[in-house]
Amino acid sequence: MTPEPLRPTPPRDSIRTRAHSPRRSAGDRGFLLPPRIHRTSDPGLPPTDLSLLPPSGSLPVVGGGDSYSHPPPLSRLLSPQAQAAAVPASHLQVSPLLHCLVGQHILSVRQFTKEQMSHLFNVAHTLRLMVQKERSLDILKGRVMASMFYEVSTRTSSSFAAAMFRLGGSVVHFAEATSSSQKGESLSDSVQTMSCYADVLVLRHPTPGAVESASRQCRKPVINAGDGVGEHPTQALLDVFTIREELGTVNGMTITMVGDLKHGRTVHSLAKLLTQYRITLRYVAPQNLHMPPEICSYVASKGIKQEEFKSIEEALPDTDVLYMTRIQKERFASEEEYRACFGQFILTPHIMTRAKKKMVVMHPMPRVNEISAEVDTDPRAAYFRQAENGMYIRMALLATVLGR
Amino acid sequence: MTPEPLRPTPPRDSIRTRAHSPRRSAGDRGFLLPPRIHRTSDPGLPPTDLSLLPPSGSLPVVGGGDSYSHPPPLSRLLSPQAQAAAVPASHLQVSPLLHCLVGQHILSVRQFTKEQMSHLFNVAHTLRLMVQKERSLDILKGRVMASMFYEVSTRTSSSFAAAMFRLGGSVVHFAEATSSSQKGESLSDSVQTMSCYADVLVLRHPTPGAVESASRQCRKPVINAGDGVGEHPTQALLDVFTIREELGTVNGMTITMVGDLKHGRTVHSLAKLLTQYRITLRYVAPQNLHMPPEICSYVASKGIKQEEFKSIEEALPDTDVLYMTRIQKERFASEEEYRACFGQFILTPHIMTRAKKKMVVMHPMPRVNEISAEVDTDPRAAYFRQAENGMYIRMALLATVLGR
Amino acid sequence: MTPEPLRPTPPRDSIRTRAHSPRRSAGDRGFLLPPRIHRTSDPGLPPTDLSLLPPSGSLPVVGGGDSYSHPPPLSRLLSPQAQAAAVPASHLQVSPLLHCLVGQHILSVRQFTKEQMSHLFNVAHTLRLMVQKERSLDILKGRVMASMFYEVSTRTSSSFAAAMFRLGGSVVHFAEATSSSQKGESLSDSVQTMSCYADVLVLRHPTPGAVESASRQCRKPVINAGDGVGEHPTQALLDVFTIREELGTVNGMTITMVGDLKHGRTVHSLAKLLTQYRITLRYVAPQNLHMPPEICSYVASKGIKQEEFKSIEEALPDTDVLYMTRIQKERFASEEEYRACFGQFILTPHIMTRAKKKMVVMHPMPRVNEISAEVDTDPRAAYFRQAENGMYIRMALLATVLGR
Repeated sequence: MTPEPLRPTPPRDSIRTRAHSPRRSAGDRGFLLPPRIHRTSDPGLPPTDLSLLPPSGSLPVVGGGDSYSHPPPLSRLLSPQAQAAAVPASHLQVSPLLHCLVGQHILSVRQFTKEQMSHLFNVAHTLRLMVQKERSLDILKGRVMASMFYEVSTRTSSSFAAAMFRLGGSVVHFAEATSSSQKGESLSDSVQTMSCYADVLVLRHPTPGAVESASRQCRKPVINAGDGVGEHPTQALLDVFTIREELGTVNGMTITMVGDLKHGRTVHSLAKLLTQYRITLRYVAPQNLHMPPEICSYVASKGIKQEEFKSIEEALPDTDVLYMTRIQKERFASEEEYRACFGQFILTPHIMTRAKKKMVVMHPMPRVNEISAEVDTDPRAAYFRQAENGMYIRMALLATVLGR
Repeated sequence: MTPEPLRPTPPRDSIRTRAHSPRRSAGDRGFLLPPRIHRTSDPGLPPTDLSLLPPSGSLPVVGGGDSYSHPPPLSRLLSPQAQAAAVPASHLQVSPLLHCLVGQHILSVRQFTKEQMSHLFNVAHTLRLMVQKERSLDILKGRVMASMFYEVSTRTSSSFAAAMFRLGGSVVHFAEATSSSQKGESLSDSVQTMSCYADVLVLRHPTPGAVESASRQCRKPVINAGDGVGEHPTQALLDVFTIREELGTVNGMTITMVGDLKHGRTVHSLAKLLTQYRITLRYVAPQNLHMPPEICSYVASKGIKQEEFKSIEEALPDTDVLYMTRIQKERFASEEEYRACFGQFILTPHIMTRAKKKMVVMHPMPRVNEISAEVDTDPRAAYFRQAENGMYIRMALLATVLGR
Repeated sequence: MTPEPLRPTPPRDSIRTRAHSPRRSAGDRGFLLPPRIHRTSDPGLPPTDLSLLPPSGSLPVVGGGDSYSHPPPLSRLLSPQAQAAAVPASHLQVSPLLHCLVGQHILSVRQFTKEQMSHLFNVAHTLRLMVQKERSLDILKGRVMASMFYEVSTRTSSSFAAAMFRLGGSVVHFAEATSSSQKGESLSDSVQTMSCYADVLVLRHPTPGAVESASRQCRKPVINAGDGVGEHPTQALLDVFTIREELGTVNGMTITMVGDLKHGRTVHSLAKLLTQYRITLRYVAPQNLHMPPEICSYVASKGIKQEEFKSIEEALPDTDVLYMTRIQKERFASEEEYRACFGQFILTPHIMTRAKKKMVVMHPMPRVNEISAEVDTDPRAAYFRQAENGMYIRMALLATVLGR
């Protein structure tokens, strides 16, 4: 599978908009140079490498870079002074492997090679350490992100905004409800207008394909934050990133997906993305809500083993990752049918007793009742850490497309 | 009255979330060390102490620290260079007395000892001077506040946001109307999710107790921005702070509360909080809208003198602080009854002629007609300065719970 | 035409609010001194003048300053080091000619002399170069803008917010829908309250004159973002600025206005403002939607030539600027009448073939169907650059009224 580079439309007017071409400005920032060494003002201090991508020595990439040992804490990479100070953009480098994403639209996970994902995850991991160390970052200082949500999504919009803020940037919200679109403006015009004010656009739309078509007219990078039943690349990336952060690797794992697998966009994208790894997939779904044949055949074509189960209990013993999703009552033929089966698809502390000690419970959230609140205190419950990882993945993507 | 420390729930996973424990990070920042000395780059300049808490020399604390002489202007504390530059977090210290609030939820004024309040007011006072000097602060640079308002409150939400911005931080808004709660997500889940993205949460909810129960699951500090008829700690604090800023002290003052004292949460909390000082309370309320017995008996139990009056005029002569509140027409049995009495509860320039020269007029705002606009130009009208003080109190609280 | 300086109300309380008087703080910042020289930390580097107003040498002001040769690229003005670093406020100066706008309300274009506009345009032009160079600016670091929109206007609110962010400041949004005004608070009270939290207010209101009357009580500068059929100064300024940026000068140009010229506030303000230059105005409007007599007579009184045309084609040959506006269907007596004429007022690639090679197409946006999307790729289509220029004009105004 080769990545499909998606360039913003070439500037209409080279003189006027040259400065807007992220490719060029990326070049300006010497992306083809080796990672720079940062010396703190105090000459007594040793040189400090603040490369976003930790030195390969500290991040041995095994099996195609989908597994790694944790890098040394930043406290050892950074002098106290350097830790106190904010990290300026010029001191952070994007891995050469990610250069081709600079200035690109992020529309689908199909854009990413396995290696690029691995590097993106390393960037996200390093950013996570920095945030948890309470480092303030100036990577995107002065840059503006336009947040355009034509559909409600608290988690996605909040984490994109927090991601931009934590990189030192700022956010302009385009409120569809109170927007020019009321005056009959086209999506394309709204997007082009916001691209006049912002450096990057995050776009969510209920119509599949709407984000890609809108991005065609846009000279600034557009990140797809979900287009209906279409793509939601950052969700799939944060899911795989979470498995990596929780278990150290994705290869060799058995991932069990539970709930409405027929309508769940999240599990469809995730299943496709996971075919890049050596895994086993298990499905637990109510009748008539099975994983669609086209997904199953795609997964099979990649040589991935798939198994179906009637209940969580049966699938649990060998499961490394339990991926829970919502089941909407209205999907069932009758109230009785719902009552009859839905018990098999609710995770309780009792069921957790049969799970592996190191199993990970995930959920795209929001949940309704498919995971009982008592499970939250179980250290294997990773769904809130999963939500947090969404912020780090979005930080990594924003830093990458904006060429920092 | 002993403070009730309210710690966020201990991290589920020590390794993953250790960095999230503000207590520890506070320790990291050497809070137990004496205030650091800041030297500007120019070696010729004298060392400058930018401690958030002005040196006790400049702030002699008398009578339990509820009164003080104004500290010298920052212009004398700071060199021009230092004034030009932003104040980095590392140059600001929180008083040892406030350490126990670092990383804590702020749910009720009952958490604060009189001494802690006094120190909080000193911090707020210093921040006010810095803002009025147009100093830009980096105290909370890189930190994110989640603003979660399940009920409209322009003043509170705007001043919390402005407070965070003026400290160098940023704000993510959780719009209930357009939020996952529509998809049936629980308040607790929404709060835990936002705590994945933010460093501190500001929560407003119509249901009494909702904020406290939501905070129990939250590993980041939660600040109560009002929970229905329950608590609204920052309002009570800014009210007392305003009396202090306007009159220099609270002790010995006669505070007259006017309006609907039966339903006014604000006056209830304020009355309770004021019992920590040596004051006299006067009430002016329409029939059936008197201060509730439980409040009166609580105040009496603290040895505070309380007096009732039928009209503002009668209560005015000895009044140092006139605290006006709204009277909702619908509270009255009949239109006639409303017409009959409400005149007694409206403040006019004419009535002001009978007031002390140094009296202070306060109002939690918004007002409707209980204070005539002509009073605004009277220097004793403090209600807009009171609103501004809300921002400084919120700045002080944010800086404190985030351990700066 | 003499400018009408509009000062915020003098502070009620000199001690408390002195620090709020932008005039004074402007003085503090030595606005009457000659532009300062900025030396980068490296002594080896030559002194760099970062004055917001490029040296007159590089900006020869001809014909009343409404035309100029482009200044040298900042790359020649700035050392690489200086380019990497953010530009601190202290390194930027406002032209003496703009001093009288420091701390002023911006309510109408009538406030501006031709010279002030010219200097404002120079500031906007320099800020545009800085943004396109991806310079991060600290000019308004720590300052807060209140965004109060009582009427929907995506473009105006988004570009004001982006402008504030790009200057290093932050924005507090006052959502009318979810605001105290629901509780019956007056506009004046809401504005005074927000002025307690913010350093500058941007106010949009459907009622003509509402912004000016609200600004009378406000001690912080208020910028009029449109008051119904009243004023919308930043729109008129960005229109003239765009002509200047696109053609290098306004003098001698023939500007053709197309569409509903009777109800279009934008074209009314623009026509008035353009009378300050040596231009020719052409009108193309449907029957009953002609430019109002009072505007025509005002324009005539300034000795400006006006011509009427029935269709775009007829007016096109000598047109340098084609200013398109919307025609609302409902303005027409009947569906037939609409169908009959509206074709004459739609811009297509076919019509563009008859236009000058250097003609500029403008539109206040949003457009519906009056400009076919195929025109967008024509280099003469300037309406998106026009939208972007709105951000630079707003940056220049914010920097000016806040005295940086």
